[in-house]
Amino acid sequence: MRLSQIFLKTQKNFPSDEVALNAKLLEKAGFIYKNLSGVYSFLPLGWMVMQKIMKVVREEMQAIGAEEIMMPALVSKEIWQKTGRWDAEIGYEVLGKNEKNPEFILGWTHEEVITEIMTHYIDSYKDLPRALYQIQTKFRNEPRAKSGLIRGREFIMKDLYSFHKNKEDLLSYYEKVAQSYHKIFKRLGLNSIYTLASGGAFTTQATHEFQVVCPAGEDDIFVCESCNYAENKEVSNLREGSKCPKCGGKIKKEHAVEVGNIFPLETKYSKDFELKYKDEKGEYQYVLMGSYGIGIGRALGTIVELYNDEKGIIWPKEVAPAKVYLIAIDKNGDDLYEELKNKGIEVIYDDRDIGIGEKFYDADLIGLPYRLIVSPKTGDKIEFKKRNENNVNILEKEKVISLILENN
Amino acid sequence: MRLSQIFLKTQKNFPSDEVALNAKLLEKAGFIYKNLSGVYSFLPLGWMVMQKIMKVVREEMQAIGAEEIMMPALVSKEIWQKTGRWDAEIGYEVLGKNEKNPEFILGWTHEEVITEIMTHYIDSYKDLPRALYQIQTKFRNEPRAKSGLIRGREFIMKDLYSFHKNKEDLLSYYEKVAQSYHKIFKRLGLNSIYTLASGGAFTTQATHEFQVVCPAGEDDIFVCESCNYAENKEVSNLREGSKCPKCGGKIKKEHAVEVGNIFPLETKYSKDFELKYKDEKGEYQYVLMGSYGIGIGRALGTIVELYNDEKGIIWPKEVAPAKVYLIAIDKNGDDLYEELKNKGIEVIYDDRDIGIGEKFYDADLIGLPYRLIVSPKTGDKIEFKKRNENNVNILEKEKVISLILENN
Repeated sequence: MRLSQIFLKTQKNFPSDEVALNAKLLEKAGFIYKNLSGVYSFLPLGWMVMQKIMKVVREEMQAIGAEEIMMPALVSKEIWQKTGRWDAEIGYEVLGKNEKNPEFILGWTHEEVITEIMTHYIDSYKDLPRALYQIQTKFRNEPRAKSGLIRGREFIMKDLYSFHKNKEDLLSYYEKVAQSYHKIFKRLGLNSIYTLASGGAFTTQATHEFQVVCPAGEDDIFVCESCNYAENKEVSNLREGSKCPKCGGKIKKEHAVEVGNIFPLETKYSKDFELKYKDEKGEYQYVLMGSYGIGIGRALGTIVELYNDEKGIIWPKEVAPAKVYLIAIDKNGDDLYEELKNKGIEVIYDDRDIGIGEKFYDADLIGLPYRLIVSPKTGDKIEFKKRNENNVNILEKEKVISLILENN
Repeated sequence: MRLSQIFLKTQKNFPSDEVALNAKLLEKAGFIYKNLSGVYSFLPLGWMVMQKIMKVVREEMQAIGAEEIMMPALVSKEIWQKTGRWDAEIGYEVLGKNEKNPEFILGWTHEEVITEIMTHYIDSYKDLPRALYQIQTKFRNEPRAKSGLIRGREFIMKDLYSFHKNKEDLLSYYEKVAQSYHKIFKRLGLNSIYTLASGGAFTTQATHEFQVVCPAGEDDIFVCESCNYAENKEVSNLREGSKCPKCGGKIKKEHAVEVGNIFPLETKYSKDFELKYKDEKGEYQYVLMGSYGIGIGRALGTIVELYNDEKGIIWPKEVAPAKVYLIAIDKNGDDLYEELKNKGIEVIYDDRDIGIGEKFYDADLIGLPYRLIVSPKTGDKIEFKKRNENNVNILEKEKVISLILENN
């Protein structure tokens, strides 16, 4: 992409009305725009990153046999009354409930919706197991949202629901999803800690969260320094310095961000909706369910909280909007730009008619993994610098290309 | 894809609570599920078609230099008051306005949002022109929605906004978008008619709609039989049998579906938000704007209204969830399935443990472009049938593959 043609304007200063580092950096670098408190627009570079994250999520969902669907955001009052959620939820958190004659709300989770759908499609044990997910915009009324993309009024989530014949099959898939989530977060550059948590509005069972230790986190978790066993403070009797119940190691308290969560719902929703299947003996049994969420925008916010320095963002490779930031000084960079593209390397070519200082500033702020410079000084060679390292090397073109491709 | 692994259940009968043919067919064939009146879920096959349509739209948007962004659905009261839309709109059509203390509504169009954003990014003539689009779920309260995907309470739209220095540049881009829209609809199998229309809530200027003649259409348009010149009834003095004002041909009245619309907004929104740029002489001028919409779900509904027979849907090639429906009778079809996939041909392999009659029924109902059968009767050859033709041919494998690839 030629930067002269991309809609991008970086800022010289942090926005004055943001507290969260992720929002400050993403706004300064031109990735997002704040429309309202907790409500953001993704500008072209920001939307590219979101699409990269969604691509990773889709690939890993496909790998565990989950199929993509799209459910409506509008959820009827009736269906929420059926599970007791209509009365249980505090009104202002749910958009739509304060309508004069509320008929539906904007669902921020879809257990009711998917369970009702499945009553029409699951008849027999032959229809199980099944796993369906969606990537959807969700809404929650957070009047004092101030964590940037980590807690918003409007946010994009991946929610997955699974359906099983028996507890064994549910728990085996639950474990599969847990592994898939660790893989997803690893690809996104996030080290996720599997944390015991409470069921909240979803279930009375124990559930699990994927927590990422990060200064911006809103959750307190107790983590074992040796084996990574972790419990959310809400459900934990552990304290800083306690002995780990698994390995006897030392427990540490951390301020963390919940980037994913998984719930073994078992028959909670199937019972509310009479979701049953006929087993091998012809007898009707309740379907067992699990539900599993990942905050896509929240993951992006968490990545930025962790990957940055005083100059700007440092994108992990898999989610960077492009791999290479190319600057040509007193020289035409078109040939190299075309060659890199032809090799399948994503490049942002800063061909704007602005000063070199500004280009260096933006290269660091935008934070692509590799910065390449060609100039009369480099001759046939290329100046190569990684965003996360300080050393600069003048290398042969072939060497540069192979370094980028190897690390892709 | 192996059908035994896809979440799909077709029905024997049309749903009893649907009037619109598109909803009847799509529900019967297992592509969508009706959650509420005017509110649908896309099941895996339906979502695949939606993604194909979005792919076409994205490709053509990129071809005219438009960049993808994502704006919020939540639109503040304040911003809608600025353009007078808050008071002009009838409350019940807009979700959120009937809240006890409405702070924002769910925007079903984003002129206000994008204009406000651009006041922060457009300073100079060097920042123009610019074109930004999004593909987003939108909401409108339609208490008696009964047209299936053609008019819903919740629907996916592509909305594009462009920004220009002067009227000449705006009109030239407007024309470019019009050509792009014709191309998009053609790729989707829709013959769109460029129709003069009123500005509605957007502008007092004349605007244009892309209308597709179809029995399910809710609009009346007057079209010339010779040159395709058309006017929406709302703005037209023409009548059935009138003389075409362009070519003198005969005017015909048609019941049509509006699948797209384009608006030369000029300075309406720039004036409300003081969106100005500094021209080459250093003087401030209002930015000129255009806005352009395509209903993604509505396009899908319209395709189904036009492409079907008594047996089911007949997907146009570019939007079919796959190209080939493969059935193996008393024979293993795995090798052919793998070979087709390796050639880059998308296949649904009906490997379900059900009767052949059911497979034939579903092949027609689901409506992929090509049905292939292998059996002891066909030997090394393959039975080849197009969904939109009745003749069946037994052909060599190489011939079948080349026929499919040629028509891809």
